[in-house]
Amino acid sequence: MLQNAARRALEYGRGFLSQGVLVDYIPELAKADPGRLGLCVFTNDGQKAVCGDVDRRFTIQSISKVISLATALQCEGFDKVFSKVMMEPSGDAFNSILKLDLASNRPYNPMINAGAIEVVSMLTPLFSFEQMLEYARVLCLDGDIVLDEAVYESETLTGDRNRAIAYLLRSKGVLEGDAMKTIDLYFRLCAMSVNARSLAGLGLVIANGGVDPDSGRRLLDERVVRVVKTMMLTCGMYDGSGEFAVRVGIPAKSGVGGGIMACVENRMGIGTYGPALDDRGNSIGGRKALEFLSRELHLHIFDSQSE
Amino acid sequence: MLQNAARRALEYGRGFLSQGVLVDYIPELAKADPGRLGLCVFTNDGQKAVCGDVDRRFTIQSISKVISLATALQCEGFDKVFSKVMMEPSGDAFNSILKLDLASNRPYNPMINAGAIEVVSMLTPLFSFEQMLEYARVLCLDGDIVLDEAVYESETLTGDRNRAIAYLLRSKGVLEGDAMKTIDLYFRLCAMSVNARSLAGLGLVIANGGVDPDSGRRLLDERVVRVVKTMMLTCGMYDGSGEFAVRVGIPAKSGVGGGIMACVENRMGIGTYGPALDDRGNSIGGRKALEFLSRELHLHIFDSQSE
Amino acid sequence: MLQNAARRALEYGRGFLSQGVLVDYIPELAKADPGRLGLCVFTNDGQKAVCGDVDRRFTIQSISKVISLATALQCEGFDKVFSKVMMEPSGDAFNSILKLDLASNRPYNPMINAGAIEVVSMLTPLFSFEQMLEYARVLCLDGDIVLDEAVYESETLTGDRNRAIAYLLRSKGVLEGDAMKTIDLYFRLCAMSVNARSLAGLGLVIANGGVDPDSGRRLLDERVVRVVKTMMLTCGMYDGSGEFAVRVGIPAKSGVGGGIMACVENRMGIGTYGPALDDRGNSIGGRKALEFLSRELHLHIFDSQSE
Amino acid sequence: MLQNAARRALEYGRGFLSQGVLVDYIPELAKADPGRLGLCVFTNDGQKAVCGDVDRRFTIQSISKVISLATALQCEGFDKVFSKVMMEPSGDAFNSILKLDLASNRPYNPMINAGAIEVVSMLTPLFSFEQMLEYARVLCLDGDIVLDEAVYESETLTGDRNRAIAYLLRSKGVLEGDAMKTIDLYFRLCAMSVNARSLAGLGLVIANGGVDPDSGRRLLDERVVRVVKTMMLTCGMYDGSGEFAVRVGIPAKSGVGGGIMACVENRMGIGTYGPALDDRGNSIGGRKALEFLSRELHLHIFDSQSE
Repeated sequence: MLQNAARRALEYGRGFLSQGVLVDYIPELAKADPGRLGLCVFTNDGQKAVCGDVDRRFTIQSISKVISLATALQCEGFDKVFSKVMMEPSGDAFNSILKLDLASNRPYNPMINAGAIEVVSMLTPLFSFEQMLEYARVLCLDGDIVLDEAVYESETLTGDRNRAIAYLLRSKGVLEGDAMKTIDLYFRLCAMSVNARSLAGLGLVIANGGVDPDSGRRLLDERVVRVVKTMMLTCGMYDGSGEFAVRVGIPAKSGVGGGIMACVENRMGIGTYGPALDDRGNSIGGRKALEFLSRELHLHIFDSQSE
Repeated sequence: MLQNAARRALEYGRGFLSQGVLVDYIPELAKADPGRLGLCVFTNDGQKAVCGDVDRRFTIQSISKVISLATALQCEGFDKVFSKVMMEPSGDAFNSILKLDLASNRPYNPMINAGAIEVVSMLTPLFSFEQMLEYARVLCLDGDIVLDEAVYESETLTGDRNRAIAYLLRSKGVLEGDAMKTIDLYFRLCAMSVNARSLAGLGLVIANGGVDPDSGRRLLDERVVRVVKTMMLTCGMYDGSGEFAVRVGIPAKSGVGGGIMACVENRMGIGTYGPALDDRGNSIGGRKALEFLSRELHLHIFDSQSE
Repeated sequence: MLQNAARRALEYGRGFLSQGVLVDYIPELAKADPGRLGLCVFTNDGQKAVCGDVDRRFTIQSISKVISLATALQCEGFDKVFSKVMMEPSGDAFNSILKLDLASNRPYNPMINAGAIEVVSMLTPLFSFEQMLEYARVLCLDGDIVLDEAVYESETLTGDRNRAIAYLLRSKGVLEGDAMKTIDLYFRLCAMSVNARSLAGLGLVIANGGVDPDSGRRLLDERVVRVVKTMMLTCGMYDGSGEFAVRVGIPAKSGVGGGIMACVENRMGIGTYGPALDDRGNSIGGRKALEFLSRELHLHIFDSQSE
Repeated sequence: MLQNAARRALEYGRGFLSQGVLVDYIPELAKADPGRLGLCVFTNDGQKAVCGDVDRRFTIQSISKVISLATALQCEGFDKVFSKVMMEPSGDAFNSILKLDLASNRPYNPMINAGAIEVVSMLTPLFSFEQMLEYARVLCLDGDIVLDEAVYESETLTGDRNRAIAYLLRSKGVLEGDAMKTIDLYFRLCAMSVNARSLAGLGLVIANGGVDPDSGRRLLDERVVRVVKTMMLTCGMYDGSGEFAVRVGIPAKSGVGGGIMACVENRMGIGTYGPALDDRGNSIGGRKALEFLSRELHLHIFDSQSE
């Protein structure tokens, strides 16, 4: 039944692909095939549903913000992290610097670029990229994640706005350490190559309170996971987060590489891949497939028929 | 046990009262006693816990935005309402007009003043204030709610910013009808006189999917309630909504009159009263009492020990 | 020679008319003929050059801001006026409220709507519209100025943004008195019906330090005129003021009715009429004619060949 | 008589020094003595008036923006320069990035940091710092200008906001070439060490239409100088430019190092030094001395008694 619902969700999502467009500001990403769509669901009790392009690799992009935040919370603690970044939805685009300059020295939340760069600046003195990569493999239950060198190069060439954000954070005294090293780690984390399965794996660990249900191994503290899930719910889908919370009601994080990672509390992790994006930068096929699945399986946090 | 937890939550909240201040821009509200605090919990299965100032009446203020939104969704439907107002957290103060002028003609969400005024403009041709008042009594399970004439007068005298917002909405073509009539209904709805019990009643109906658990009577459609709860979670606590979602994780709506109305999915409605406000305009005692209660009773939406 | 230069300036300006558009937000103004262009020059030593549509009447619109400011400075004094409004170019559109809300309670300058409405609020308790109209006739050396009732009605119907600005100013405590009465006077002043001759007359009085050179009668104090001229130079051409100062270098004020009033220090007053507007809201034909005239007759304040 | 007026202007300015403060964001500048004040006037007909601290050297800071703009206009031409930067007063602080992000890709004008950095980026491929320094010596009629190494180091250490601006300009495609090289040249130009005499020299050349009146040598084209003077008048005194134009009415450019350079059309160049700054970042003593001098000698562009 899960596999059947997944298949129908994929079909539903596919109907919207023609309304999406490829990201254009990172040339390497503009080469993707906008017709692709994949959906992968892993449940707490061991079921797996996969359909469509679930093996194709793409770069994780902003979904890495979840990994960075979880790592920083795990290593530096709640209070230190949130002394440097706030927890508020910003209502602005992911790469906005408006609020940073007008309203607050601290970035609004760790899911927008400014906040994520700040979080990565806390990780830079602690971990090499290789260590972060290894940790990503563990959290995603996927040992095959690698750096996509071509996308990394492409981001490096076109990443001036992120460099501007890093220097702005430094000028405000919230980013300590070297701005260029921080940005390099940030670009590398964005260029990790995952597939829909990796994202379903990550979603499952988070849905399950930080424990891999297969091995029973705890990978993240329960409190860290709770914070991450809440931030995903309020801020995870760029400036479409509020509408996604209303219509879908599942904590999720999207990336401009075309991925969405979602987690249904105590039930399942979901990964989708579809590089055609809507006007907020979210995968349009993935978003619509999740909307279908939420309605069909009663996954909305406030669906009274949800388990 | 519930009564005991409520009492301890009240004590915990009381410890923060001295950090709060009374609202100052509506003179009549500045007369409240900042030392007051009350907490009232109604559960789905009929338990009631009350402690502190639960009978004292105060004006509902922004919590009326929940009633307006629910009424508009019920009468005009999801699509019409959200063609006039968005569903996104704004990251700005409740009375901000920045985004309205810069980013979008539609207000960002129905929980900020601009959005709520837009919603009330849809109700103005449909209902008199007396009809809305009667409906509020039904939803709050409290037949004694009346208009606080003194606060209504005070808001009328000091409400120029809300008039500016109404005319700005009219100039953008989203507010139709008479700006002054809309604002008058908006001020009256804000000046309805409730107590912590009324708010717990409203919270219970919403927590219970729109049905009064005592009478079994359906007061709101399940879908309407789901939207309302999601908007409360992402936008209900002014520009402290994100942090409240992380720390407390219960859909809630506050008002500058000192009230907070909260609803724990399928479990309970909570009303608090404490006119001393934090720097975001939320009752500091009420907020802290809710934080205590959430931790103690595992009420956070992502608390894995929640029922 | 002056008449010849004026004729060539008119021809030059006419070449740009097809690039302009009529204002659209006041329906009555959208009825104008975009092919019209008129130019009128009055010199200190009694020369007059007129060509094109110099007798056709149109509404003065924002050029009335100069009359309001001069009157307020004359009656209330420099210090009082500039305690309510600043003297800084805003860099924003004429009807912007951004700075008003973000940066300062006082409007940035008396040439944008917010500043002019504030200035008119100082005049409201002092003068009836009829008195202001009479004063405008005197300053423009034109006894035939009347209220254009149709445009006044049209502004009243579409003026919600200006009402929003008035209430916003009231909410900040800078606009005292009745917002609606102020706005009504503001709309009436904008709807005064002038022609290019009236504007040349006003320009001449200002260019001549406040004295009507024909009669020798002093109409405005020299100090008032100096402030007015400076504000025209830095803020008179909407958000094209800086470029106009560079390219033309003459204090000028435009209105969306199609008029421009300009004054060349100690030399001449110029009035133009051309309802086709550029993308900043300035008469495109009038602006180009002035640019031609400035170059030809060395009228730029920093033209070393100017007299 | 000129010397006498200058002395009295200096005394007048000195009375305001205690209201000023030293700049704090560049540590090396915070070491200046806030009690210093110097005034130097050079007239077209060879008079010189000097009083106070006219020999003490300080860094030119933002006054270098005039030299950069003049050089770029001279070498690249009006059209190319203003295809990359606008000519509008911004109404924002000198280091604002708000408008750059909200309103336009091009910086608002060449007198704010963003605009000046853009202008310097056009010079970077053309000239070494040493060549620019040599040119500055020529324009200021002062062969002794050198790089203040300590201030240059200090700016380099604290210049992250300017780096952010450079990368933001690059991300918008208006700054071409290397951001870091551009910023390095920008910092060096700001750290050129001048005195009040150098500024009076520069002011004299500009007041005199680009010709050194002593030698009769043309240093800048007349058209370049006209543009520069107009930009100084509308944008030269940071966000106090409008008020300075009203009260003083002389094209001027200030720097946070404490200098002001001013030029009275066809009459004189003026340099002042006083490191105590007002709340807009302008030398308070220098500004007040200029206000006195303008009143006393009728230097205001719209003073009808001016020659």
